[in-house]
Amino acid sequence: MSKGQETRQAILDEATQVASRVGLSGLTIGLLAQHTEMSKSGIFAHFRSKDALQVEVLARARERFVAGVIAPALAAPRGTTRLRTLFEAWLRWDEELLDGGCIFAAASFELDSQPGPARDHLVQAERDWLDSLATVARTAVSEGEFRADVDCAQLAFEIHGLMLAHHHASRLLGDPDATTRTRRAFESLVERCAV
Amino acid sequence: MSKGQETRQAILDEATQVASRVGLSGLTIGLLAQHTEMSKSGIFAHFRSKDALQVEVLARARERFVAGVIAPALAAPRGTTRLRTLFEAWLRWDEELLDGGCIFAAASFELDSQPGPARDHLVQAERDWLDSLATVARTAVSEGEFRADVDCAQLAFEIHGLMLAHHHASRLLGDPDATTRTRRAFESLVERCAV
Repeated sequence: MSKGQETRQAILDEATQVASRVGLSGLTIGLLAQHTEMSKSGIFAHFRSKDALQVEVLARARERFVAGVIAPALAAPRGTTRLRTLFEAWLRWDEELLDGGCIFAAASFELDSQPGPARDHLVQAERDWLDSLATVARTAVSEGEFRADVDCAQLAFEIHGLMLAHHHASRLLGDPDATTRTRRAFESLVERCAV
Repeated sequence: MSKGQETRQAILDEATQVASRVGLSGLTIGLLAQHTEMSKSGIFAHFRSKDALQVEVLARARERFVAGVIAPALAAPRGTTRLRTLFEAWLRWDEELLDGGCIFAAASFELDSQPGPARDHLVQAERDWLDSLATVARTAVSEGEFRADVDCAQLAFEIHGLMLAHHHASRLLGDPDATTRTRRAFESLVERCAV
């Protein structure tokens, strides 16, 4: 990576951190300048507009999501082991990576009624994520661990619901049982699908 | 209600509508003045600060939630009928009442990392809501429809996850199957708990 690319990436990672707490709408170029100790014009030279900044934050977060959540699952054996690896990697992502937790969960509820390039980008990312969950669940069908009649898109929808419930219980309510409850619910779903 | 109270309530209902689209942080006194065709000083006389406005919007939404979601359930027979009534009333609440859908779902993800009076108010409302779900589920246990060993707080957590997944699928993704998927998942949970 060139020096310029490195700087850009460091700004985006800091921007993701800030946005996870205050939302993408709250992520102003002024606030980001403050957090990176750069000048507003310096930040502006990199991103030109708030819209462009929001899209690039989501794109960079997606790169990190693929590396931190999708890649470990694809390295695990096909089937329920892979599904469980994906699920556990997501829990770590929501709990550890960003101060405000999963930025995609937060942005989904923030942008759902706000048309624009950031929302469009997010819709693609969320569709891909639900597809990934369903695709990994299908490996459990083809490995003979899940029944052939399991509706894996439906299962992906339900697992995704648990993830949102986890974010809500841990981030908003500060519920110490959030992770235990989420894991228990996940195992009930896996059990329901098992041969 | 006095004329002053009526005006206040009308402003709050419009504020809830706006906040369901742009978030509580985006709900400025200026924007609300625009939507109600009142002067900023007129709005300011009613609420004095953005913090106070946010708290009152949540309090007013909660009144409407109790009337529109909790009350119909309490009027239904105890047990799974009551639980299903509560669930269906919530679906209508998310789908029909506000342009941006359930304001509590949106605010939960917006405010989770933003300490302050609005967040404090929301945490109480969300705890009450999860308690209501669990309490209604317990009537199914005491009526002998659910097994005695069903963990109703866990079930409430899982039903709540489905509600968040519904909001995400319908509001962000525009998925035409959102409601069908949510109902199907709810029925699987009920079935798992049945005697």
